[in-house]
Amino acid sequence: MASYSVLLFRLTGRYLFSPSSTLFAVFLCGFPCKNPKNVTGDDFFFSGLDIPGNTSNTLGSSIIIVDVKVILGLNLLGISLERIDFAPGGVNPPHIHPRATEILLVLEGTLLVGFITSNNKLIVKVLVKGDVFVFPKGLIHFQINISVSVAIAITALNSEKPGSIVIGDSIFGSHLPIPVDVLTKAFNVDADIIEKIQSKF
Amino acid sequence: MASYSVLLFRLTGRYLFSPSSTLFAVFLCGFPCKNPKNVTGDDFFFSGLDIPGNTSNTLGSSIIIVDVKVILGLNLLGISLERIDFAPGGVNPPHIHPRATEILLVLEGTLLVGFITSNNKLIVKVLVKGDVFVFPKGLIHFQINISVSVAIAITALNSEKPGSIVIGDSIFGSHLPIPVDVLTKAFNVDADIIEKIQSKF
Amino acid sequence: MASYSVLLFRLTGRYLFSPSSTLFAVFLCGFPCKNPKNVTGDDFFFSGLDIPGNTSNTLGSSIIIVDVKVILGLNLLGISLERIDFAPGGVNPPHIHPRATEILLVLEGTLLVGFITSNNKLIVKVLVKGDVFVFPKGLIHFQINISVSVAIAITALNSEKPGSIVIGDSIFGSHLPIPVDVLTKAFNVDADIIEKIQSKF
Amino acid sequence: MASYSVLLFRLTGRYLFSPSSTLFAVFLCGFPCKNPKNVTGDDFFFSGLDIPGNTSNTLGSSIIIVDVKVILGLNLLGISLERIDFAPGGVNPPHIHPRATEILLVLEGTLLVGFITSNNKLIVKVLVKGDVFVFPKGLIHFQINISVSVAIAITALNSEKPGSIVIGDSIFGSHLPIPVDVLTKAFNVDADIIEKIQSKF
Amino acid sequence: MASYSVLLFRLTGRYLFSPSSTLFAVFLCGFPCKNPKNVTGDDFFFSGLDIPGNTSNTLGSSIIIVDVKVILGLNLLGISLERIDFAPGGVNPPHIHPRATEILLVLEGTLLVGFITSNNKLIVKVLVKGDVFVFPKGLIHFQINISVSVAIAITALNSEKPGSIVIGDSIFGSHLPIPVDVLTKAFNVDADIIEKIQSKF
Amino acid sequence: MASYSVLLFRLTGRYLFSPSSTLFAVFLCGFPCKNPKNVTGDDFFFSGLDIPGNTSNTLGSSIIIVDVKVILGLNLLGISLERIDFAPGGVNPPHIHPRATEILLVLEGTLLVGFITSNNKLIVKVLVKGDVFVFPKGLIHFQINISVSVAIAITALNSEKPGSIVIGDSIFGSHLPIPVDVLTKAFNVDADIIEKIQSKF
Repeated sequence: MASYSVLLFRLTGRYLFSPSSTLFAVFLCGFPCKNPKNVTGDDFFFSGLDIPGNTSNTLGSSIIIVDVKVILGLNLLGISLERIDFAPGGVNPPHIHPRATEILLVLEGTLLVGFITSNNKLIVKVLVKGDVFVFPKGLIHFQINISVSVAIAITALNSEKPGSIVIGDSIFGSHLPIPVDVLTKAFNVDADIIEKIQSKF
Repeated sequence: MASYSVLLFRLTGRYLFSPSSTLFAVFLCGFPCKNPKNVTGDDFFFSGLDIPGNTSNTLGSSIIIVDVKVILGLNLLGISLERIDFAPGGVNPPHIHPRATEILLVLEGTLLVGFITSNNKLIVKVLVKGDVFVFPKGLIHFQINISVSVAIAITALNSEKPGSIVIGDSIFGSHLPIPVDVLTKAFNVDADIIEKIQSKF
Repeated sequence: MASYSVLLFRLTGRYLFSPSSTLFAVFLCGFPCKNPKNVTGDDFFFSGLDIPGNTSNTLGSSIIIVDVKVILGLNLLGISLERIDFAPGGVNPPHIHPRATEILLVLEGTLLVGFITSNNKLIVKVLVKGDVFVFPKGLIHFQINISVSVAIAITALNSEKPGSIVIGDSIFGSHLPIPVDVLTKAFNVDADIIEKIQSKF
Repeated sequence: MASYSVLLFRLTGRYLFSPSSTLFAVFLCGFPCKNPKNVTGDDFFFSGLDIPGNTSNTLGSSIIIVDVKVILGLNLLGISLERIDFAPGGVNPPHIHPRATEILLVLEGTLLVGFITSNNKLIVKVLVKGDVFVFPKGLIHFQINISVSVAIAITALNSEKPGSIVIGDSIFGSHLPIPVDVLTKAFNVDADIIEKIQSKF
Repeated sequence: MASYSVLLFRLTGRYLFSPSSTLFAVFLCGFPCKNPKNVTGDDFFFSGLDIPGNTSNTLGSSIIIVDVKVILGLNLLGISLERIDFAPGGVNPPHIHPRATEILLVLEGTLLVGFITSNNKLIVKVLVKGDVFVFPKGLIHFQINISVSVAIAITALNSEKPGSIVIGDSIFGSHLPIPVDVLTKAFNVDADIIEKIQSKF
Repeated sequence: MASYSVLLFRLTGRYLFSPSSTLFAVFLCGFPCKNPKNVTGDDFFFSGLDIPGNTSNTLGSSIIIVDVKVILGLNLLGISLERIDFAPGGVNPPHIHPRATEILLVLEGTLLVGFITSNNKLIVKVLVKGDVFVFPKGLIHFQINISVSVAIAITALNSEKPGSIVIGDSIFGSHLPIPVDVLTKAFNVDADIIEKIQSKF
């Protein structure tokens, strides 16, 4: 994106570098800014969201994220986009965006979507082309393609860096696993079932 | 949308009504809420964004807004969607969203888009299918279809009620016109030109 | 707590009632307020956090919550407290507070505590009496009593209504279950394992 | 204002400079801070708002802005002041503050003031000495001196950097002009009128 | 200000009344709103800030507040104004605005103004006509007229209801006094001095 | 806490240092961040809140603060803890937290606690072990041990840097004293009483 004509230091990602070294110096709390006088249309632009993602994976789905890492001009502006592709039967598994509400538009296909309220009630809806659905901030939600054709959705999130906590990955697949004793009590099953699920991640 | 089973009062839009009268009683500062225990999928749902809007008008464009008035479940959640259709040459004229940044995705066609920075510099970009562009909060922006085919865009805004100040309508077409003396000085032209433009709104 | 001397209407919880009926009328978006001129010390007070909770349950833990439902004077003030008791081996299972960061102080015993970052890394620490630990907003976290004695913790959360999404309950125990197809793909296991876990909730 | 005794780097405006070069290095997202231990009264002070501005210009008005650029101690504090002078007939032309509501006090003279609501309705009022008026955030507003004497107003805005989008300058006078096709459709007039107005900026 | 054409209920101040009774019903958390379609210029207007306040009191000062109680259109807009008059030697005694930063402009006279930082350091400045000074949110501050003429200041605060905690009134003059034991320890003096000061309030 | 492996610069407290010099370079507006990939449990940890503070001072009280200076991982997370010890008769004198509401839990002993509303009304309550009380943001409050035994309280505040304005210290003990003329008028007493109190600080 934006090229930062910095002579004495360089900003790369969220680090402040020295030109004579590639060792990091200072980590920024947020994302870097650019002098408004130097911005161009390219600082607010991304290309290629018409290209399908690759759904040849165990989930049968793919997510392309257009957030502040991709369009630096989104910094501090509080919005981002995603394209989600689903193979037939493909799933975007239960996850939470800790910093954003999500609104989804179906471009192609048929999705069953849902979220679980803080009263532990499942809210579901079957969506077809042209349908819109809202997943409130901080709640677990998912989508599944329930037809035999591919499905495509566009989602918008009201943060330039919404984050995503995928429940399966976090609970069973973290780097350093959660102690088995915690999970057997949490899910009320024997250790061998927990270890079996952990082995898949 | 959500049906409010209110026996003694009724909420209609943003008013609190009495059942024995249709005269308004109290105007709500924001939008009404619904008991989370009673929400269903329909409270978070809208259908029909795959249907083209009617662009047979002087601007050659059409906007369908999916905000909190349309999906009541968006209340307090800070996001909304729009579909914009453009006839060949169609224009979404210069406007401001006072409460939201906008991110736009081109679904079909070719658009020239732009915004004016607070340093009074025009930032422009030509967009084709699959391209994404950002219009920062509070800045004047526009889109024009520069091809001979129709164009379709989806936009997301980070407010459930982003508002829209269309510059032409506000400046030249307000109910009770702005005094001509203000506009002749503001635009540095004679009164007859101001009055000619006002007559078109 | 606060008594609302309302003659024509009554506020009960978050509903506006009519005196001649117990049928609800209007649901409030937030919590009710009280005229500052009428507040007393009792509006800001709660008693009994020195009394242990009952940990005779499958998790071996108990949570007493002091939030805006308990102290109405907390309304709009953005803070709440909890007391958590742990039997030996007791677990506060993986959960998320969508609206609050949590800070925990160990009053008695030994806890292993942890959270999973959005980079999917487990951060853990063993805590003893007098130790303090922070669980950042929106991340999955847990505590387990790893000693043979009881443990007691006090936690503070920076919301008067922090909410709590218990992962096990939401994923496997929601009212209306999440479709099995979603969960088998999400956790990469056979349907019988999913159904076995669901049967425990 | 505040002098920053920086030995190895220097902060100048919003850039982090190297002492051995005047070429910019890193652009700050916001404004610089100063160690609270080193602040003095001068960091919170500005002098000269009793001196009339020069209204010998086509608009017949002048604005002196006291924002964070002028008083660095305003950084992060969310308020600023302006003095506006009007020659007889002078105009502060239609503009928007994207980040602030404005409250205006007339010190001398007679002003006609107004703003346009998002429902496109003009709200106007004639003000004399001692009168106060509010211009809500994000709405187009203006003032005109309708008497034969000078007028003076003090305004306060609830941002230390409120910004100002002057409609005429943005629409007709941007660096790189807005394409004429956009403006002819937006204002429903012929290209020669648009070009005539553009030529004045 | 705004007249509320409410037939079945009436809003008076922050209460929702019944027309058949003057007994209060429901207390609003914030201030009431008005349908934007019905607002007029009078909803955003106040008159009379050119009239000096009465400084014939022990402090020798007077404050006229233009906040949301006076201009209902300020509701939710986050700004207010004050006029402060000072007799020679008059004092605006040490106080805190819990919800606002204050910016002050001297219209007439000579003031010594100051605030105390959270590091307990006094920041002072002598101001004359045309000078501007900032009092950061939440810090104790004061003004004193150090000349033999009257002084006039205009202040703006970035809240429509900034609040004001006058230290002397709160500490020594509250309804139900603070226990003497607290104050003797807090100020390290004998009870008779505390009681002497309390007797003045 | 966190060690910052910075080769070319060092972050110490809130300064950005050069390795070849201990002279300060740039003062950070907030607190430094750390790359999330490098955080460990120690970044979110503090030990020792079970150890009583030293109450051998004129107030008979002691406060241990666990804020962002102590746990750097609290940065931007909006919460902190305190332990307060009281000797018999000990006082935590009247003070204000400009950036936080406080919730207090009594672990041992008997406290009389109170705050003064912005209507200048004292709200008080006697608390014993297990009692909880709320002190709203920006209001003057205090605690006193009214028993013959020690008392211990844990408080939580909804800011990682809540600040504390101790009224006595600010009014009578600031570095550079508040002019006596201001205080004699503010407290309506003779200069010798003011000077006597000032001499104690």
